[in-house]
Amino acid sequence: MAAWSSPPSLRHLLMLRPCLPLSPTCLAGSLRRHIHSRCRLFSSAASSSTLTHGDIASTHGDADGVVEVNPPRGTRDFPPEDMRLRTWLFDQFREVSRLMAFEEVDFPVLESEALFIRKAGEEITQQLYNFEDKGGRRVVLRPEITPSLARLVIKQGKSVSLPLKWFTIGQCWRYERMTRGRRREHYQWNMDIFGVPKVRAEAELLHAIVLLFQRLGITSSDVGIRVSSRKVLQAVLNMYSIPDHLFTQVCVIVDKLGKMTREEIEKELVSTGLSSEAVQGIIDVLSIKSLSKLEEVLGSDVEAVADLKKLFSFAEQYGYADWICFDASVAFDREGKLRAICGGGRYDRLLSTFGSEDIPACGFGFGDAVIVELLKEKGLLPDMSRQIDDIVFPLDEELEGPASSIASSLRKKGRSVELVEDKRLKWVFKHAERINASRLILVGNSEWERGMVRVKVLSTREEFEVKTSELE
Amino acid sequence: MAAWSSPPSLRHLLMLRPCLPLSPTCLAGSLRRHIHSRCRLFSSAASSSTLTHGDIASTHGDADGVVEVNPPRGTRDFPPEDMRLRTWLFDQFREVSRLMAFEEVDFPVLESEALFIRKAGEEITQQLYNFEDKGGRRVVLRPEITPSLARLVIKQGKSVSLPLKWFTIGQCWRYERMTRGRRREHYQWNMDIFGVPKVRAEAELLHAIVLLFQRLGITSSDVGIRVSSRKVLQAVLNMYSIPDHLFTQVCVIVDKLGKMTREEIEKELVSTGLSSEAVQGIIDVLSIKSLSKLEEVLGSDVEAVADLKKLFSFAEQYGYADWICFDASVAFDREGKLRAICGGGRYDRLLSTFGSEDIPACGFGFGDAVIVELLKEKGLLPDMSRQIDDIVFPLDEELEGPASSIASSLRKKGRSVELVEDKRLKWVFKHAERINASRLILVGNSEWERGMVRVKVLSTREEFEVKTSELE
Repeated sequence: MAAWSSPPSLRHLLMLRPCLPLSPTCLAGSLRRHIHSRCRLFSSAASSSTLTHGDIASTHGDADGVVEVNPPRGTRDFPPEDMRLRTWLFDQFREVSRLMAFEEVDFPVLESEALFIRKAGEEITQQLYNFEDKGGRRVVLRPEITPSLARLVIKQGKSVSLPLKWFTIGQCWRYERMTRGRRREHYQWNMDIFGVPKVRAEAELLHAIVLLFQRLGITSSDVGIRVSSRKVLQAVLNMYSIPDHLFTQVCVIVDKLGKMTREEIEKELVSTGLSSEAVQGIIDVLSIKSLSKLEEVLGSDVEAVADLKKLFSFAEQYGYADWICFDASVAFDREGKLRAICGGGRYDRLLSTFGSEDIPACGFGFGDAVIVELLKEKGLLPDMSRQIDDIVFPLDEELEGPASSIASSLRKKGRSVELVEDKRLKWVFKHAERINASRLILVGNSEWERGMVRVKVLSTREEFEVKTSELE
Repeated sequence: MAAWSSPPSLRHLLMLRPCLPLSPTCLAGSLRRHIHSRCRLFSSAASSSTLTHGDIASTHGDADGVVEVNPPRGTRDFPPEDMRLRTWLFDQFREVSRLMAFEEVDFPVLESEALFIRKAGEEITQQLYNFEDKGGRRVVLRPEITPSLARLVIKQGKSVSLPLKWFTIGQCWRYERMTRGRRREHYQWNMDIFGVPKVRAEAELLHAIVLLFQRLGITSSDVGIRVSSRKVLQAVLNMYSIPDHLFTQVCVIVDKLGKMTREEIEKELVSTGLSSEAVQGIIDVLSIKSLSKLEEVLGSDVEAVADLKKLFSFAEQYGYADWICFDASVAFDREGKLRAICGGGRYDRLLSTFGSEDIPACGFGFGDAVIVELLKEKGLLPDMSRQIDDIVFPLDEELEGPASSIASSLRKKGRSVELVEDKRLKWVFKHAERINASRLILVGNSEWERGMVRVKVLSTREEFEVKTSELE
């Protein structure tokens, strides 16, 4: 996991894996991978210093009667300036989701533990933020959102019309013994499509991601999207006539790609009884980085090749071909050297692991941390200062009443109004500058007697009197 | 608590209590009351059927391999239609907060337990959604937001300039053995002002609440705001020369107003050693429902009267005097017959209970449940149906590529576009109607050969061909 604490590299990689329908035996692996993929975002988020507060180690002691001012370790407060940044980012997520005609949904941050440990391995369970509630129920602060989504799809049943395109922005949690500066929560934008078995679903999701990058000012030379399919591995196994029942086993071994050396993996593959020719074939195919090379090796009849060609042809038509590249290893290599901004893929068999009928499904999760770091690096964060319309300031205590009605009438007209009292005029001017007020409305005795107020436009330093009834 | 399950009454009451600075001994009570006030919102929220899902009792069994499709008991999913309603409501909260020039902040939903049990009584602790994390720390899903807010104010320290006006919209939790249909979470809009000791703070908060009601179409005949001050009780005690050290004790007894009969309270007051004259005086004052009557009884020199008169005079100036009424009992009667939409008041001494220097503070919490129920009753909920701009539909599989580029170019122009495939034209028309699409863009072979697409405007049933390059 050391890779995550290294400084962000120039080219941030983003992975989207169309892992098209797999044999049921491999599904557990696929689901686990799905969770891992989200966890990975988490890992990268954790190393970010952006938006991070309160993760300085400190005891929760109460001996001196002073409350701990930091939020629980690994969590963040959002003071106004951080909140403005978050709101801006979430607005970008929402706007892209609107362009893509996705509907927003939400789920409780607290879920039943069973939803997450059904098919997941020991590794995920260890990082679950799980506990027992007072009624003895095993619950978790969700580590990812997809299982809740699947749960709701099952619950809605026949009442929803497919395809279904949902997005959500929610907080996800993990529990980890804290090494300094890592976070236990992050926010994740999820887009998911249910009911589209073809690569059109992947193509649409990729479009959403690229639209977001474009809105943010990020270019295809800043970010790369690596695409692959698990069907590639299936095709290799077929090529060497390896029986289907070995597929799961091979998946499990190949999944260790980032953690083990190529030699170790070769050794493990050999130990399953595969011929050394087949093992070499698998290893060779996984290092392929171009679609034409893949076609050359597997032939063009193979489903994996056909799917990927279709996806890349769509990418041309949408206009985002320069953002994506083929990389056979991405469906397996979870420990890439570069920090992931987002990740996703297909999970056509998830619903059956929940005891329901399967519906083809595909989605991605996009974290709130690495992207902000990248935007900072590139100087792409917009001006986040506060902005209000008017400051209303009575120059005299007697004029506090009139100031109330002026503030009230301006607010009714849609203007954001700060009512300031008990300050010196000098402070008010400074304050107006600090919060980027457009105007200062001074309520003074001599003007008020004539039914007027004094208006100062702060950008032009223009100053004039206006009848209170004509103040807009 | 039976009152909460009764059907909503015609006139929903809303309580805002300016409990101005109290003697430190009474602060614990004041803070507790503050928490109660929020809990009360909770109680009322719990009896609401609006937006409620998944609270049907069901076991979390997994025997048949089917996952529990409902979220944890007492929590809600937000499918698209409920999410649209929530987003609309939150947008109203945000817009009013903007008009009032408040800044948005946020906090983790998970907080240290110490933040909530420091000064609170046993009663609140019982309803805390608390547990021990894997690191042995006592944490809670927050029951209210104010303590987090106070924590952040202390943490920011000298770096913030006062007054400080913050708002937040967040989920709050309580744990209660479930009686059917009650909820364990709700969302709450909070507005808080730090650094304004005068009733101007209360006047501004009331303005925000009234602005919200007005935006929602609710009138002052639908909703009432009851206002009082704890200083009233202090004044009565002074009137009868009751020593300061009895104030806390009297507060504790008077706090039982909603739970006990007047006779029982009288009896308890007598048992503290108060003269029967003083007891009668307290009881009489607490039943006063008009400010002029209060002035008559206490005199106009008394701080409570001066504060309240100032507040009501501001209300005139702002233009919301008809929304508020004086009710001496509101600062104590927590069990009012009518369901509270929101509640709040002053908490000038909260920071010192956290071991920090006090800053005058005032705020309210506004729940998401009772208000929606009221809007439903009044027929004030807006049309919440889905709405998109364009549906792009290729009439032929070969045209899926071109359809991609059309969808892409429309999205770049800011239009929300649904790309539909593998459906019959009849389904597409029905779908367009169901999701309120403005236009249908048909990509057909003969048109495409001429660089055209067919556009159908669904409101007018107009149909025409457009050059793809000119499609806006």
